[in-house]
Amino acid sequence: MNGIKNNKNGKVYICGAGPGDPSLITMRCWDLIKNCDIILYDRLVSNGILKLIPEGTSKVYVGRSSGDPTTNQIKTNQIMLNYASEGKKVLRLKGGDPFIFGRGGEEAEFLYENAIDFEIIPGISSAIGAAIYSGIPLTHRKFSSSVAIVTGHEDPSKEEKTVKWDKIATAVDTIVILMGIEKLDYILKKLQ
Amino acid sequence: MNGIKNNKNGKVYICGAGPGDPSLITMRCWDLIKNCDIILYDRLVSNGILKLIPEGTSKVYVGRSSGDPTTNQIKTNQIMLNYASEGKKVLRLKGGDPFIFGRGGEEAEFLYENAIDFEIIPGISSAIGAAIYSGIPLTHRKFSSSVAIVTGHEDPSKEEKTVKWDKIATAVDTIVILMGIEKLDYILKKLQ
Repeated sequence: MNGIKNNKNGKVYICGAGPGDPSLITMRCWDLIKNCDIILYDRLVSNGILKLIPEGTSKVYVGRSSGDPTTNQIKTNQIMLNYASEGKKVLRLKGGDPFIFGRGGEEAEFLYENAIDFEIIPGISSAIGAAIYSGIPLTHRKFSSSVAIVTGHEDPSKEEKTVKWDKIATAVDTIVILMGIEKLDYILKKLQ
Repeated sequence: MNGIKNNKNGKVYICGAGPGDPSLITMRCWDLIKNCDIILYDRLVSNGILKLIPEGTSKVYVGRSSGDPTTNQIKTNQIMLNYASEGKKVLRLKGGDPFIFGRGGEEAEFLYENAIDFEIIPGISSAIGAAIYSGIPLTHRKFSSSVAIVTGHEDPSKEEKTVKWDKIATAVDTIVILMGIEKLDYILKKLQ
């Protein structure tokens, strides 16, 4: 997916870095890590992947563990905007995949609204990577014809909670819950 | 995920090749393409990816477009078994991700039962890759807290059809249907 071009040829690459193992980044991600001017990275991007960043490249930690999420997102957006407007190639590196609970959609909207050229590059979702390492096929021709990937941590500011745990429990064959540790008791009760 | 070791140190790598773009294979997949002795590939592995295979490496097409699926799967299993038993490194290259409707689970079971060492390496699922290229976030903090990936082509030999389209329609926020073109009318009716 590509955004619109701005005048100075700066660009933001919103790229998934996969579940953590550096050998599971894509060739494209590797190429961007080597060739971008500045890299904004999340808490979920592993040390092994950060070690691939060349010495001369600027790194900015924009993880959301520190402080409130909204302020952090505004800061992240502003940094992307500033550097891209200066004509820089900005790599926005995210754990997993940018479109599976990675806020990739929101950042893309922001860039589009600000006429900044951008591109989104998929990554291995941790939902899939973790399943493979644990040996659980998410689908199986004989046993599972559907899989749902669900957040266990809905946006707290959302007025109405929309995850229908009771319906999901009977609708699909496999359920993957991401970011569900804090509310696991609640989720399990709802599913039953 | 790793299987058990056999005596001759042959091994099968069941590896996802992503949605088609060669730059979306993982570093690990690239490494295996360069270093395995023989590569078994599917119909969904693109020409661009096949071009990465070194000249001296044996290639075997095991796509299921030709002939009936069951016979083909038995043949594929036999080829993997034969080469791995000879001590060869076998790359089983699959389009997308091996655990998202890629029969990776079945092939892993076969190798496990035959005491062949194996490893499964995830790939970018076409469900995710295609969504990104089309600009549709599968999840969005404000609009979608869940996504279901469902096959539109259930195993025809399965006695009971298990995809509950009517329930899925209201249980999750985003639905991705893979291999659904043939039965699209039926599926859309059920969803409504």
